[in-house]
Amino acid sequence: MAIRTALTETLGLEYPIVLAPMGSVSGGRLAAAVSNAGGLGLVGGGYGDHAWLRDELSVAKAETARPWGIGLITWATTPETVQLALSYEPHTFMLSFGDPRPYVPAIKEAGCKLVCQVQDLEGARAAKAAGADVIVAQGTEAGGHGATRATLPLVPAVVDAVAPTPVLAAGGIADGRGLAAALMLGAQGVLMGTRFYAATESLGHWRAKEHIVTAKGEETRRTRVFDAVRGHEWPESYTGRALHNRFLERWDGREEALVAELDTEGRAFQEAVSKGDFETAMVWAGEAVDLIAEVANAGELVRSTGREAESNLRHANRFVRSD
Amino acid sequence: MAIRTALTETLGLEYPIVLAPMGSVSGGRLAAAVSNAGGLGLVGGGYGDHAWLRDELSVAKAETARPWGIGLITWATTPETVQLALSYEPHTFMLSFGDPRPYVPAIKEAGCKLVCQVQDLEGARAAKAAGADVIVAQGTEAGGHGATRATLPLVPAVVDAVAPTPVLAAGGIADGRGLAAALMLGAQGVLMGTRFYAATESLGHWRAKEHIVTAKGEETRRTRVFDAVRGHEWPESYTGRALHNRFLERWDGREEALVAELDTEGRAFQEAVSKGDFETAMVWAGEAVDLIAEVANAGELVRSTGREAESNLRHANRFVRSD
Repeated sequence: MAIRTALTETLGLEYPIVLAPMGSVSGGRLAAAVSNAGGLGLVGGGYGDHAWLRDELSVAKAETARPWGIGLITWATTPETVQLALSYEPHTFMLSFGDPRPYVPAIKEAGCKLVCQVQDLEGARAAKAAGADVIVAQGTEAGGHGATRATLPLVPAVVDAVAPTPVLAAGGIADGRGLAAALMLGAQGVLMGTRFYAATESLGHWRAKEHIVTAKGEETRRTRVFDAVRGHEWPESYTGRALHNRFLERWDGREEALVAELDTEGRAFQEAVSKGDFETAMVWAGEAVDLIAEVANAGELVRSTGREAESNLRHANRFVRSD
Repeated sequence: MAIRTALTETLGLEYPIVLAPMGSVSGGRLAAAVSNAGGLGLVGGGYGDHAWLRDELSVAKAETARPWGIGLITWATTPETVQLALSYEPHTFMLSFGDPRPYVPAIKEAGCKLVCQVQDLEGARAAKAAGADVIVAQGTEAGGHGATRATLPLVPAVVDAVAPTPVLAAGGIADGRGLAAALMLGAQGVLMGTRFYAATESLGHWRAKEHIVTAKGEETRRTRVFDAVRGHEWPESYTGRALHNRFLERWDGREEALVAELDTEGRAFQEAVSKGDFETAMVWAGEAVDLIAEVANAGELVRSTGREAESNLRHANRFVRSD
């Protein structure tokens, strides 16, 4: 049993379920676990720390014989980082947040499938023109960085705009119901982030995982605060969705004041990150936290999500009445 | 051919497609057209203007022999308005935005099905406790008034929270792909607003309909500006999604200044509304405008949406591979 879409056929997957490449959370072990279960694991290269990338890409490469990949933040990457990643021979290369064009030739030359994540129709058309093999339409309900459009109306609009390029849905999906819904919208699969953050194999702090398990969707916010305190200069159009906490309550909307006190606040924040103090440090998380009830094994998550979607799809014709 | 869900069986519909009761847009003629095509038409009673209600409820009652209904803004309504509406013997009574409890006994006593629209899980549980027969989970991508949660992750969470009460999805749905997706999420049907705003029979200004047809999802915004200029005191948690225009650009975030100039600005605004000047007057519209390519007959919209969903659901098992 498995699900067949343009994505599974192109990449040789059992399920059209892709691990979102969450920076410093989607490590090699998590990516390999998702790939070994028949999904597609993407290591989250984030801002491109080379030592981290070497470690995690080695693990992914060693722990799975199935297709896997890497994802980077486009505006923060460099040709050197792309080359480093390619040297580990990923099957898939995902670029999010920025203009992918400078990196397309190297990625294509290496024989990698290019996946571009976009947040609006203009971005989708640009990604197609740049040569994307797969386009991810990411909605505002997603955890971590993203923009303002919601997944449900964005996905079919992107599907129409870039056909026949395959589209994946990202944002708000954490179970088989979301996967089945995405396929009905015309997507060929899904990216899941927050659900896999709370997987056993993720590099997320155990306390962050517990926060995700207990949090409610109403408790997530889009904000620039956690970028400001870390000195990351994200382009204007992107914010990050995180669980609400005391630090966010204190600084949201006062990013300039925060930057003015970065000497002390930045240091205290980094300390909170290393201690796992999540009343200060951020837990990136999407609105789908409502659907996440336990920390679970990543392979089991791929299989249970796939099976639930299979069952919904197999029985979808029960809704059709021929009398 | 038709679609069968808990909603269609309870109300005797051909398709689980409900006309959102858009104030001063969903008149009796539009509601009757949706009902006559096998959906459920709800007259949009808005703030409860009695003369308007008498006119439009008479039309709905006269023009369809099938189930139809009425929707009101809960916080703005009164027992008298509810009684007036009930005197036209609607089959379904929808309440949105506020505590429905004061009106539940009268509605139930009249033999009406009670539909409550909510924007979060707390609201969903309260609606169930209040006796709602059907709960609408409305996402932030919806046009007009609403809140912050997105439809795709909200719907399955509400389904889980209020089972076995039937749930409808609202926000971001304008075609059969959205309807099929909603059923996969566990909903028993959908509300569509913006799509029917641009129907021939809607009371919307022809120029507003043309704006909806040409607009892009990126051009919609959630705002309080259009409430402020009309002197409507909406509860804090609700904003309205409208097409971006010059008035919004000028006043968004400066609602207090606007209220201070209400004498002149309010009058100019009302003039723009009557003239159909939509660089000042608002066009409530959701992110699904990307999926709306023409003004069309409401009955044809019900049938084409239903048929597209049927086709997607009937063939959904093509995604399941048994090898």
